[in-house]
Amino acid sequence: MSRHPVRDSSEFKELLERLAVVDDLARAAAVLRWDMETYMPPGGAGSRSQQVGTLRRLSHQHFTDPRTGELLHRLAGVVQDLPYDSFEASLVRRALRDYERATRVPARLVGELGEATALASHAWARARSANDFASFAPYLERNLALLRELADRLGYEQHPYDALLDEYEPGMRLSDIEPLFEKLRDALVPLVQAISRRAGMVDDSLLHQPYDEQRQWQLTLEALKAIGYDFERGRQDRSAHPFTTTLGFGDVRLTTRIDPQDFSSALFSSMHEGGHALYEQGIPEELARTPLGDAASLGTHESQSRLWENVIGRSREFWRFFLPKAQALFPDQLGKADVETIYRAVNRSRPGEVRTEADEVTYNLHIFLRLELEKELLTGRLAVKELPEAWNAKMESYLGIRPRDDAHGVLQDIHWSQGMIGYFPTYALGNVLSVQFFDQARSERPEILEAVAHGEFQPLLSWLRERIHRHGSKFTPKELVERVTGSPIRVEPYLAYLQRKYAELYGL
Amino acid sequence: MSRHPVRDSSEFKELLERLAVVDDLARAAAVLRWDMETYMPPGGAGSRSQQVGTLRRLSHQHFTDPRTGELLHRLAGVVQDLPYDSFEASLVRRALRDYERATRVPARLVGELGEATALASHAWARARSANDFASFAPYLERNLALLRELADRLGYEQHPYDALLDEYEPGMRLSDIEPLFEKLRDALVPLVQAISRRAGMVDDSLLHQPYDEQRQWQLTLEALKAIGYDFERGRQDRSAHPFTTTLGFGDVRLTTRIDPQDFSSALFSSMHEGGHALYEQGIPEELARTPLGDAASLGTHESQSRLWENVIGRSREFWRFFLPKAQALFPDQLGKADVETIYRAVNRSRPGEVRTEADEVTYNLHIFLRLELEKELLTGRLAVKELPEAWNAKMESYLGIRPRDDAHGVLQDIHWSQGMIGYFPTYALGNVLSVQFFDQARSERPEILEAVAHGEFQPLLSWLRERIHRHGSKFTPKELVERVTGSPIRVEPYLAYLQRKYAELYGL
Repeated sequence: MSRHPVRDSSEFKELLERLAVVDDLARAAAVLRWDMETYMPPGGAGSRSQQVGTLRRLSHQHFTDPRTGELLHRLAGVVQDLPYDSFEASLVRRALRDYERATRVPARLVGELGEATALASHAWARARSANDFASFAPYLERNLALLRELADRLGYEQHPYDALLDEYEPGMRLSDIEPLFEKLRDALVPLVQAISRRAGMVDDSLLHQPYDEQRQWQLTLEALKAIGYDFERGRQDRSAHPFTTTLGFGDVRLTTRIDPQDFSSALFSSMHEGGHALYEQGIPEELARTPLGDAASLGTHESQSRLWENVIGRSREFWRFFLPKAQALFPDQLGKADVETIYRAVNRSRPGEVRTEADEVTYNLHIFLRLELEKELLTGRLAVKELPEAWNAKMESYLGIRPRDDAHGVLQDIHWSQGMIGYFPTYALGNVLSVQFFDQARSERPEILEAVAHGEFQPLLSWLRERIHRHGSKFTPKELVERVTGSPIRVEPYLAYLQRKYAELYGL
Repeated sequence: MSRHPVRDSSEFKELLERLAVVDDLARAAAVLRWDMETYMPPGGAGSRSQQVGTLRRLSHQHFTDPRTGELLHRLAGVVQDLPYDSFEASLVRRALRDYERATRVPARLVGELGEATALASHAWARARSANDFASFAPYLERNLALLRELADRLGYEQHPYDALLDEYEPGMRLSDIEPLFEKLRDALVPLVQAISRRAGMVDDSLLHQPYDEQRQWQLTLEALKAIGYDFERGRQDRSAHPFTTTLGFGDVRLTTRIDPQDFSSALFSSMHEGGHALYEQGIPEELARTPLGDAASLGTHESQSRLWENVIGRSREFWRFFLPKAQALFPDQLGKADVETIYRAVNRSRPGEVRTEADEVTYNLHIFLRLELEKELLTGRLAVKELPEAWNAKMESYLGIRPRDDAHGVLQDIHWSQGMIGYFPTYALGNVLSVQFFDQARSERPEILEAVAHGEFQPLLSWLRERIHRHGSKFTPKELVERVTGSPIRVEPYLAYLQRKYAELYGL
């Protein structure tokens, strides 16, 4: 008798083969998109979009083929007796969930969404550079209409938003995240105000000097190597917007950007993307070419990037290790700095209009604002034409500032033009989880933070590998947090971390 | 009534859509392969081969779908009344030819060939570095057995070799090329001998000095820009083996290699690949995403690379224009050189064991040797185990040298391990055609060569665009040569060019 009766069955093998083709097509599309953002000459844009469209369509066709469903339904019965976290049971569970979502959406709607969001992305780019929200409004309305239909097709119990959120955070509902976010908001708004009153306490002028781009590049490579990113199985390149992408097992790449007047932009971009990349590099080969070969969710993903960027990268311990390296590359700019000076500089908090430039304290308020608005847009309670004013009003009440114009306000993010509603909350979830996971790690391995000061990142990384990365997407984010920390998602650790850190920095 | 009754018909549109998907998949595979050779980290190799395999298999499946044949056969009747070179008639003719070839080969054989050649390529790389032909022999035997079956499936009238050659040179047979090659061989062997007796006449020590790699890179970019390569629709990168690839309409890339001890290696690699790339950049958008969007054949392709690399790049006129540019980048190495010195240096001829390093005179003899051997291998008249000795003996009779070992002899090329038998003759055909086309161009536009001396390449390029590039693969190579030059393929112009040039260089 076979030792792996399910895995060795012809039906399971057939399923694996089908899923491998689907995954190959998706990864091929990832190669094409990586190239688009890094090296593609301008002339290639038109044909490249067609190619990516073809790959996505074929991938969807292969996945939603009725034979996939047949195999999944038959195997669902067979794997019942296997452990919940076994490869076979997890694979069938996850694939069935994805299959059911995918087949609820008619091909016609997939096509219309693809077309509408492509047009809307172009309209958004034009509108942003012309600071002309009105020209973008009809495209956003069209996207919203299609997303409402999408939510209806996917189905939901309480709120259409749940159907969209579920794409990025499997199993997560508004009713899960709103109570968390309210608690956070109620604590962060006064914290921002308190910091604003003592703005002069922290000086980051050190960062704002000319920094040679080649040397900045070298510095990011040193940081990535230090934290354990494997360059044999990945690489770093430059792009306008930093991102991480998996092009296949053993090939997880990231990009960064360089600001010649502030080396911390490239460094923290690289550490952020490096955190994402460590997660993907930690997913074992067994899960490759299956739907289990991804992160559990976007929020889980973001927990890793934020952990490395903020909890580690903006800690005193990290700078005790890393300042001498930065000084060796930038003796003129940093030669006289001490750990305390650089620690304070990289942790300066100040309300700003742009989310991607926000610090740890203000960042989440940018997210809550977006979540509240997109919920209202989706139900139609907020009209698109009223959106800019609603945006600005919320900005004022949360952060005490009004954007100088729509380009730096409601038009700053690409997400809505691409039809990604339900995506923003994953950023805030990632922030919350970064500290919940880190506290758990320290409670199990108290030496982790002090090791960082000696340039030893392996204690932390191996814990993350063991507890989080190696599971790929076997578990939903809720299940994962429970397994790792023994409790549901909680904001208290994160809030305590922020309050402690900023009370000390600003003498509150 | 429609102005384009065929083009506007639903069947023609359906055909175009099917072919576009096939092309998208092939171009996506080209992106994946380009990345493999340029930027992919080592860890990505395994999953990348799987992805390329999946794309190729799907592309083949889509193309050989019976519906493609149905549409093609119906449309073949409809386009009969349209001009031979019309888009519609050409498309159906070319696609039908490809379809019939593709459907004659069972999927089983395609799979076996894919697997056998993948194994053989690895075995070849190991065998070459260990200088161990015997370890490669069984893989070559397996390839040959499969290629014999392939030839039988494809069908042929006179010789199984014809079936394989037809893949690279549509419509070309051994009976077309052998008489040409014999004439060439009979003239080149004595020419090589005559040059060998006067080897001291030409000195290329100028080339063999340290040349800064950055500056070499700049020099190749200047050459490419000068000849008209469009960097908005392409780019140059480095790779171990230079190549050109089309990743989509508007995205034709090339690679080069740099020898820090000889700047001419990078320069001529770039001009060679640049010639290929100019061809592909000259194929009009109308033909994109169809089987007409390629070159007429590999030989035709090579005619363009050789024309720019040799006929232009190794001419006195080119160096009258280009020497000052090279001198500006390399004042120490080239400051004192004159046009005559560099012209002689880049045209030095000397028999060598390695094809890819061969000069204009000896290059074709490397090809004839391979063609003669692979013909005998295919029919089984030559046993694989006798191959190394047969190789060495031919080398001696054609070039007067014996390779130092098999690694630099019979194991030097990757082609046979990849199952590419019938490919080598296209290199010699390209050499022959480069001069036949160039002579025709000069007879129509006598100013072309003198313009090169002034850095004006447009007269030549626009002629090539008009007469060759814009047709894509509407014509077979034989048809194209007839249309362009008014005669069949002839070796006399090429032979006259070589004899004139080398008689003068070596005082023969």
